[in-house]
Amino acid sequence: MTHLPMLLEEQDLAGALEWLETQPPYAIADEIARMDEVQSVITFRLLDKDRALEVFEELDPVDQQQILEGLRDQAFRDLVENLDPDDRARMLKEAPAKVAKRVLAGLSAHERQMTAALLGYPEGSVGRFMTPETVALQQDLAVGEALEVVRRRGARAETIYTLPVVDRGRRLTGIVELRELVLSEPTAMVSELVVTEPPRAQATEPAEAAARLMRETNVLDLPVVDSEDRLVGLLTSDDAFEVIEAADTEDVARQAGAEPLERHYMSASVFQLSRTRMVWLLLLLVAATLTVSVNQAFESTLESVTQLALFVPLLIGTGGNTGAQAATAAVRALAVGEVRTSDLIRVIWRECRTGLLLGLMLAVVGFAVGAVFVGADLAAVVAITLIVICTWASTVGGTMPLLAKKLRIDPAVVSAPMVTTLVDATGLVIYFTTAKVVLGI
Amino acid sequence: MTHLPMLLEEQDLAGALEWLETQPPYAIADEIARMDEVQSVITFRLLDKDRALEVFEELDPVDQQQILEGLRDQAFRDLVENLDPDDRARMLKEAPAKVAKRVLAGLSAHERQMTAALLGYPEGSVGRFMTPETVALQQDLAVGEALEVVRRRGARAETIYTLPVVDRGRRLTGIVELRELVLSEPTAMVSELVVTEPPRAQATEPAEAAARLMRETNVLDLPVVDSEDRLVGLLTSDDAFEVIEAADTEDVARQAGAEPLERHYMSASVFQLSRTRMVWLLLLLVAATLTVSVNQAFESTLESVTQLALFVPLLIGTGGNTGAQAATAAVRALAVGEVRTSDLIRVIWRECRTGLLLGLMLAVVGFAVGAVFVGADLAAVVAITLIVICTWASTVGGTMPLLAKKLRIDPAVVSAPMVTTLVDATGLVIYFTTAKVVLGI
Repeated sequence: MTHLPMLLEEQDLAGALEWLETQPPYAIADEIARMDEVQSVITFRLLDKDRALEVFEELDPVDQQQILEGLRDQAFRDLVENLDPDDRARMLKEAPAKVAKRVLAGLSAHERQMTAALLGYPEGSVGRFMTPETVALQQDLAVGEALEVVRRRGARAETIYTLPVVDRGRRLTGIVELRELVLSEPTAMVSELVVTEPPRAQATEPAEAAARLMRETNVLDLPVVDSEDRLVGLLTSDDAFEVIEAADTEDVARQAGAEPLERHYMSASVFQLSRTRMVWLLLLLVAATLTVSVNQAFESTLESVTQLALFVPLLIGTGGNTGAQAATAAVRALAVGEVRTSDLIRVIWRECRTGLLLGLMLAVVGFAVGAVFVGADLAAVVAITLIVICTWASTVGGTMPLLAKKLRIDPAVVSAPMVTTLVDATGLVIYFTTAKVVLGI
Repeated sequence: MTHLPMLLEEQDLAGALEWLETQPPYAIADEIARMDEVQSVITFRLLDKDRALEVFEELDPVDQQQILEGLRDQAFRDLVENLDPDDRARMLKEAPAKVAKRVLAGLSAHERQMTAALLGYPEGSVGRFMTPETVALQQDLAVGEALEVVRRRGARAETIYTLPVVDRGRRLTGIVELRELVLSEPTAMVSELVVTEPPRAQATEPAEAAARLMRETNVLDLPVVDSEDRLVGLLTSDDAFEVIEAADTEDVARQAGAEPLERHYMSASVFQLSRTRMVWLLLLLVAATLTVSVNQAFESTLESVTQLALFVPLLIGTGGNTGAQAATAAVRALAVGEVRTSDLIRVIWRECRTGLLLGLMLAVVGFAVGAVFVGADLAAVVAITLIVICTWASTVGGTMPLLAKKLRIDPAVVSAPMVTTLVDATGLVIYFTTAKVVLGI
């Protein structure tokens, strides 16, 4: 029976897992009680959620306390970081709601983020941002009694304005607002004031989605539950705002072909600033060699009408601008939920017509500019190219973010510079081909 | 005495103003009492704030009601819209807090926005977004009494979680959170729980600044006061969030050289989509004719080494990307308050070095690409140009938003396309000059 500590010593997590699966909860609790803090925590985290709760309940309060403290501990954190990713993933399954809540309570926002990782909440998930300190109510209380509960336990909670209502098994059944309690008669029943089936988020789901849901449903705080709908915490509007602000900052940076800075702009070093921008610049530079190839392919066209070169920056610049506008509009519309990936065909059709309309208007000016600098022939080439390029750029720019999202890539990665670079190369092909056809070269 | 109605009939606002200045409040109240709704409202809105309050207090309740209703009225709204801008500005000075609060109460968010304009709150100001329905407390209450006030008047208020504390003259002296009241003994005094000198916003100041202040100070709701610090309402976190989201959407659109859509992306017509993008595209196209001139100026250089043309899209593209990254980073840093206009010199220096570092790294790749397509000579020109263009683009891109803000222009107007277009033209000059020097043309 005592070979579990040995398996752990040898870091044989698979063996330990096998052993744990065959033992009854009380036997596991017994083993845990004899272990040192780190070993007991590892053993505990290897259990799946239901078993973990059973074992936890079997433990003496002093051993329970050891596990809770161990889960917050730097030693455990270091150990998890040194595991190989497979073992780490196996270990960090979602912890039981009851344990998670107690581990996270009393930590600062920063410590909470660090510790939430050890409880199995992935990076950027709701579990990393929620507060576990809530005042949960039972449905069968009178308003006066409920206010008593709030008074007794509210000082420790981060917010008491949203009060989750749970059943005996900590399953979320509704929420009630403090406002309703305060404005009602003390003899009224909480059950009359409860909003049932409230919007909620799972602790493991992306925080941004939860924050946007809060905005749409206009709730002050969003209850957070585990995969069995047991209450683990609340996402406050404060936290939600921070999540959305960070997501927006990331989108904005990505739209310009950069990664978001992890720190304050003025305190970041020049090297850190460069690093956020370098990768995309390099990729785009490599992609831009395509334009060199296109130019080379049409070298004879360029040589026979050297004046064609005059308009290259103007044409690809305009194409890039049109594409960037469409891409940015699509990324934002996706972010705030105005467009879904299922709208793809409709977006293509909208952007195609928008680009055509823009191209037609710009062609008038383009023709005038061309006529001033060169002749009407070349001006016609410029005008026609503008129409085709704008239609193409707008369609590509508007479509690519949706395609990215379909492929589960962050749509904001389809940056304005990326669209611009793509439109540069294809724009040149459009330009030279138009020139060949119109001028009969 | 009765020539006021005549002056109004003739739309002689200047004359009416002069008359009003010479009369005592009771006489004006007397005149107002005889007028029809529209005339009485106009007269009332012509008074400056202090006089307006004095006159208002002199009026019978029924006449007060007439003014309040008139201020919400469509007829008055139409009339104001048809005034010429000078008269309109003269008329729509800030209304007294007491009157403003009563006019706005009970209106929907949309009606409130429309009506707030008639009370003298400029577009985009806090007054257009705030809720006037608050529960204000007096400092000398006990907690139990204060909760009684909240119970009695809370149902009508939009929020009761933040309770502004005012003195006898409705001047804001602090706030107290409902949380504090609920968790304290009923016999404690409100004065012990009050947060004095709370952050606040003036109704006439920009809503975005107020919303960002809320985020920084982490308050749930922000008290809104008039120019004499009298309470007029609360900006709730909900409203603040909406303000910031709209501002971000605007920034994002402007960054791509477009105006924000006023409606849902999918419901906007192709014509509306085009309109948001057209103006900038046209301006940028006109600006891009500069690149045609530059190309023309260097035509002899281009003709003597025709291969120079191969790299034009790649070079100006990379310059544009670098500039766009820097501009976007600067605009966002300004928006979230990480950078101030006083940081101008430091930002120039940072972006200059960042651009240089990026340019040096890109030059290595650029040289390799050049060497593959053409010879080492031309590759050297490409590499040197990349270094100079990146340094220049990064500096210009990072600096222009700050300069725009200094000139009180929205920094986001310094869009990526604008920087790109500017860098296109100057980049060509850098490229051809470098070629002339290095190749000795």
